[in-house]
Amino acid sequence: MRRQLPEIEEFVQGIQAADRVLLGQAITLVESTRPEHQEMAREIIGRLLKQSGVTDSFRIGLTGAPGVGKSTLIEALGLHLTNQQKKVAVLAIDPSSAISRGSILGDKTRMEKLSTSELAFIRPSPSGDSLGGVARKTRESILLVEAAGFDTVIIETVGVGQSEYAVHSMSDVFVLMLQPGAGDELQGIKRGIVEMADFLVVNKADGDNVKLANQARTHYLNATHLLPEKANTWSPKVLACSALEQTGISELWESLELYLKHVKDNGFLETNRRRQASYWLKEALENGLRTMFYNNPVIVNQFETIEKEVLESRISPFAAAEKLLNAFKDNSG
Amino acid sequence: MRRQLPEIEEFVQGIQAADRVLLGQAITLVESTRPEHQEMAREIIGRLLKQSGVTDSFRIGLTGAPGVGKSTLIEALGLHLTNQQKKVAVLAIDPSSAISRGSILGDKTRMEKLSTSELAFIRPSPSGDSLGGVARKTRESILLVEAAGFDTVIIETVGVGQSEYAVHSMSDVFVLMLQPGAGDELQGIKRGIVEMADFLVVNKADGDNVKLANQARTHYLNATHLLPEKANTWSPKVLACSALEQTGISELWESLELYLKHVKDNGFLETNRRRQASYWLKEALENGLRTMFYNNPVIVNQFETIEKEVLESRISPFAAAEKLLNAFKDNSG
Repeated sequence: MRRQLPEIEEFVQGIQAADRVLLGQAITLVESTRPEHQEMAREIIGRLLKQSGVTDSFRIGLTGAPGVGKSTLIEALGLHLTNQQKKVAVLAIDPSSAISRGSILGDKTRMEKLSTSELAFIRPSPSGDSLGGVARKTRESILLVEAAGFDTVIIETVGVGQSEYAVHSMSDVFVLMLQPGAGDELQGIKRGIVEMADFLVVNKADGDNVKLANQARTHYLNATHLLPEKANTWSPKVLACSALEQTGISELWESLELYLKHVKDNGFLETNRRRQASYWLKEALENGLRTMFYNNPVIVNQFETIEKEVLESRISPFAAAEKLLNAFKDNSG
Repeated sequence: MRRQLPEIEEFVQGIQAADRVLLGQAITLVESTRPEHQEMAREIIGRLLKQSGVTDSFRIGLTGAPGVGKSTLIEALGLHLTNQQKKVAVLAIDPSSAISRGSILGDKTRMEKLSTSELAFIRPSPSGDSLGGVARKTRESILLVEAAGFDTVIIETVGVGQSEYAVHSMSDVFVLMLQPGAGDELQGIKRGIVEMADFLVVNKADGDNVKLANQARTHYLNATHLLPEKANTWSPKVLACSALEQTGISELWESLELYLKHVKDNGFLETNRRRQASYWLKEALENGLRTMFYNNPVIVNQFETIEKEVLESRISPFAAAEKLLNAFKDNSG
């Protein structure tokens, strides 16, 4: 980042002109913990939203267990798209980034070819104290990359923990990557994640694995038939591909485009985005409320004592809450 | 309820003397939506907690799909306990009670014998606008029945939706009831629920079903071996019983007693209760905060307009939240 931060106006114009340096700096502001940076970021996004309105983008959420080949697939799919002159942004939500300060996508060499493309923008996962914080930053970054003209936004996460739900809550489509393998393939993956998936992509359908991959595909195909119908009325599509050998990639994209048409036609895309915006408003509000409450000096002062009484069963949790809420009411503002 | 409500002191003394009428009335206060009733309830619970402190009770959470025989089992287990002069309270959390205004346990004839016992107290699920509200009321009622000397508290819920988590969050032990049946028995039940269970009880091991029930038992036994170790270091116990023919009931109770000894000895019981109290404090606080926020006249006034801007992508959810939070800050207290 430059010593002197550019002015808001410079950011707004630069991002609209697809200036990658300014875009990157704006995302850095989003990710910053400094209040003045966050305020600047909010101002920039606000100005961009006012000017561009709803953008015609496609937000693709992608998850899969470590080692399933997410980066390789994103690179293959990304190159397939940049070859068609599409502009691809790759963002990530890494739940472990609270500790590791950004591991997935941190290593840009993982997408060596895509990262050198003029038409692609790759950004590692932000770090943060909580998954909620990390997710919020990524959600805001989506707005920035879209304002910079990136029409396809891939949001990656690792298939562990709760981050899949976060990615799902900001994507138009949810892609679950799977490995061919013996036994009950659904075993390792939480049922809820499978139920969210619009696409199940069995990767590594190459070399000795082709037969296994096709078996896995059939298995998942049967499994998805048992799932309840989704709100988008799309029957989950099960595909096999090889990110390494780049087979099945164009089929995947064609199928994703069919999906996009489907949810545009039936109105789900718009309804879903509105629902997501409403969800994020609620999340941001309640997160802000909690922060306001727990940082209130009177609460800071009283909380520990009252919590101790609760833990020792000397007061019920509900009476304790009432006490603290009254103290907050009398001492906020 | 009487025309004139008894005084707080009368409630406190009555409940301590195990007066069932006053106990029932106090629970009605807990369940009431009128603020003055809630305040009275809070005062009564507060007084009782101060006087009795931590009670030596056993809170048993029980779930299972509709038709699995929960009432029959609770009656059989309850009678087994009252025969030993134990005092048994049966409470419930019915997620559908928001609509049906209390369905499960509503029909007392379902536990005909137990409900006439002097040593038993059966209370249908409270109703409420939300599962959270229903659960909170049951959580407070636990404190009341314990203060009235009921040493075994069974909290029942139907195995659909999120209510199992609510029951789990207020129980010392979590029992999942299952049916013998063909195919993959785990299919219908959410994985997370199975993982929470300390006991898996295959009911209806009677008549032609004995063989099937034992097969199911073996199946679940194998399945539980694959589960990760629980915080209470208890290996889930899989039992078969017939609530109808009252076989396996004393084995279930003996096993529950072993569990109770296990979690008392290793300190989990206390740690878990403290964790639960802390959880309920947090829940009550955040619920109260939300109520305070969304009922604030300034927020009521501005919310709809700002939410509309968010839904139309004219402002980001985060900037909108900031705006509303600032308005709240300036106009609360």
